[in-house]
Amino acid sequence: MSASDKVKNQSLHHVVIVGGGFGGLHAALSLGKAPVRVTLIDKRNFHLFQPLLYQVATGGLSPADISSPLRSILNKQQNTKVLMGEVKNIDPEQQKVFLNKGDITYDTLILATGVSHHYFGNDQWAPTAPGLKTVEDALEMRRRIFMAFEAAEKESDPVKRRAWLTFVVVGGGPTGVELAGAIAELAYSTLKKDFRNIDTAEAKVVLVEGLDRVLPPYPPELSAKAEASLVELGVKVQTKALVTNIEDNVVTIRQGENIERVEARTVLWAAGVKASAMGKILAEHTGVELDRVGRVMVESDLSIKGYPQIFVIGDLANFTKPDGKPLAGVAPVATQEGKYVADLIIKRLNYESLPPFEYYDAGSLSVIGRHSAVADFGKVKMSGFLAWLIWVFVHIYYLIEFDSKLVVFIQWTWSYFTRKRGARLITGDESLGQIGVDERGDFFVASKLDAKVKA
Amino acid sequence: MSASDKVKNQSLHHVVIVGGGFGGLHAALSLGKAPVRVTLIDKRNFHLFQPLLYQVATGGLSPADISSPLRSILNKQQNTKVLMGEVKNIDPEQQKVFLNKGDITYDTLILATGVSHHYFGNDQWAPTAPGLKTVEDALEMRRRIFMAFEAAEKESDPVKRRAWLTFVVVGGGPTGVELAGAIAELAYSTLKKDFRNIDTAEAKVVLVEGLDRVLPPYPPELSAKAEASLVELGVKVQTKALVTNIEDNVVTIRQGENIERVEARTVLWAAGVKASAMGKILAEHTGVELDRVGRVMVESDLSIKGYPQIFVIGDLANFTKPDGKPLAGVAPVATQEGKYVADLIIKRLNYESLPPFEYYDAGSLSVIGRHSAVADFGKVKMSGFLAWLIWVFVHIYYLIEFDSKLVVFIQWTWSYFTRKRGARLITGDESLGQIGVDERGDFFVASKLDAKVKA
Repeated sequence: MSASDKVKNQSLHHVVIVGGGFGGLHAALSLGKAPVRVTLIDKRNFHLFQPLLYQVATGGLSPADISSPLRSILNKQQNTKVLMGEVKNIDPEQQKVFLNKGDITYDTLILATGVSHHYFGNDQWAPTAPGLKTVEDALEMRRRIFMAFEAAEKESDPVKRRAWLTFVVVGGGPTGVELAGAIAELAYSTLKKDFRNIDTAEAKVVLVEGLDRVLPPYPPELSAKAEASLVELGVKVQTKALVTNIEDNVVTIRQGENIERVEARTVLWAAGVKASAMGKILAEHTGVELDRVGRVMVESDLSIKGYPQIFVIGDLANFTKPDGKPLAGVAPVATQEGKYVADLIIKRLNYESLPPFEYYDAGSLSVIGRHSAVADFGKVKMSGFLAWLIWVFVHIYYLIEFDSKLVVFIQWTWSYFTRKRGARLITGDESLGQIGVDERGDFFVASKLDAKVKA
Repeated sequence: MSASDKVKNQSLHHVVIVGGGFGGLHAALSLGKAPVRVTLIDKRNFHLFQPLLYQVATGGLSPADISSPLRSILNKQQNTKVLMGEVKNIDPEQQKVFLNKGDITYDTLILATGVSHHYFGNDQWAPTAPGLKTVEDALEMRRRIFMAFEAAEKESDPVKRRAWLTFVVVGGGPTGVELAGAIAELAYSTLKKDFRNIDTAEAKVVLVEGLDRVLPPYPPELSAKAEASLVELGVKVQTKALVTNIEDNVVTIRQGENIERVEARTVLWAAGVKASAMGKILAEHTGVELDRVGRVMVESDLSIKGYPQIFVIGDLANFTKPDGKPLAGVAPVATQEGKYVADLIIKRLNYESLPPFEYYDAGSLSVIGRHSAVADFGKVKMSGFLAWLIWVFVHIYYLIEFDSKLVVFIQWTWSYFTRKRGARLITGDESLGQIGVDERGDFFVASKLDAKVKA
């Protein structure tokens, strides 16, 4: 770049994007040829294809299979800089974001930092019942799931053994359904021949959902199909059921009048999300309204009230539809929001505008195990094998868009026919990746999350 | 299994194998059809294809690509049990091994617990200069390598930036050569277009070897070829050079009279190994002799003196060749030792014996970067592209033997042509996976190993 180019470049409109998930990344991609400078900031150096994270948690895929380095996705965009770092604060009046060292001035700011788990006031459950948002979360789940079978194999007391072989998944949304289905397949099929002291088919997988059916955002008939598929896989589905306590390896489940105490060493949390800290930071500085779980209430153009140059997109945003409900926190919503905001920024540079954001719902897909899924394309509703095939191809198509993840396709084809799961490694800190014996002589699996709580 | 089968089974000769690396696993596989009971104990639930671990450390492959669950490798062997656990002690008189809970009685014991890094009395270097033996080691190296480029991108001080872009690999054996070659390729080719503030081609990769040439076990002409390939890739090769200190991001290198201080934020250790703790435990109970690095001196049949029912194989064993030198710590040696011991056990059951163990050396292969390798097949010596092709096919052949790692082949073909490296994720503890700022305002990369030392 020549010196005069550099000066020209510096004077270009500067778009700062915080977060490289579906929303932030698609905003950056859509600005690739625009006469702007783009800076994409993310804590991590990769974009994560979160819809397949449950596959990592259950040993089907490796983290790298569903991740792409942000730099390599964006390296052909000469106007785009990627910065690995965390935005700690913002100043909307001076139009600046602050990293842990230094600050960056923006002309337009796009916040897309997403959500984390929500334990509805029971944060003490977090160490026992990890959620699934990051690669590390997925590896921790994978470690716990496979470790539980290892511990059961070593345990001679049948009661304790049963607790190791009991898996409770809290939350019957897409993630909970995917996890429960995948664990059932592990226990009843993949691992069946691998153990000598235990019969993995004796494992119990319980899916607990507070509402009256699984996959609540889907039409009731598809929820019913999903539940039937889960039951066929061997999952015990409990609807209208609330987890009221998780303590000492016992999950207390209240279903109406009925209170059940399930001894389970593995509890996975897929029940709720809350907005990342950025929501609160933004509200402090701009007075913008947050919803019950901390998401930012956005205007019809995804900007925030009084600050047309600040946009919030993806899971962090609460975009209320005409029916009063917010758009779901799914990848297609974030993607379309990112593209819309990019388009709007380009329009504004020409002193033009765009009609309000509208989500085009191409349909929803949710997978249940190795050969079943449900698909809701509005008028067309599907379930079973065909829906599963569509699910597979849609996911591979989107994976390939960023990076050649042909490997995933081959891996899947292979595991479909062999029922093998290749990524079953128990890893982590050496001292944690093991089964210990506590003061009473019982087996335990050391956990990083436990360690944090104790520390 | 019927009750009478069970009783019969219990009375079978019991072979306990500790360690599921190449030695232990091949011993177990060779005993699959023998009239014995086999128990394979490993701390981890997977067999690791260690010769490709440097690929994980440099972002080319995922851990699962080079690992196979021990249980699934062995699940067809009805006489074999896999136990995940750590052997803490042994009692050779009672013929028992002790786990952290319970003990196991053996008729024959095979110890194959391998080696770990050796800092030659400078263990304080471990946090700064991690070695490469486990999956966790590889992920830590990967994190440091990619994080260094990220930190350099953010650093404005040119001196500090240079330190982030300087990589010192200590040890010019196969691992050191592989690491240095792969990092050079990352810097000078793969990452070239990914950064905006730095030119990754300015990175410096230094390989330090104490002897007078790299790959000392190879014939001198191949060492020279390897060095030439490394230099062509951009690696600075320093032979007859000793690292005398690693402190405050400065590596002190003494080369004859010349003392050089290299500022480097990334130092990787590939210089030496020492036997795992099992060697010492065995020596305490049996009086067996250990060598300088703690390896067990074995008899000509790989058993230990005075205890014909205890075998030591693989890297943990020092099997002295007629020329007085020990066999190298490589996979083919361990594999052949495992098979030999299995055969010997079967012979002994029939009151027969076997001639002393003899290693059949099929040749050595070592890779240097994306299209060069050296191969020593005794009379035939090769280097360059053809050697590289042989290296690729040999490694894929052995990977496929255990598990369908076809995926690796496809991944490699792909990255060969695109020069991409897909597994470039910076992962780890959330708080560690980031670039921090210290009290002086300098960037630092939080490290798990640092944390351990501080704790």
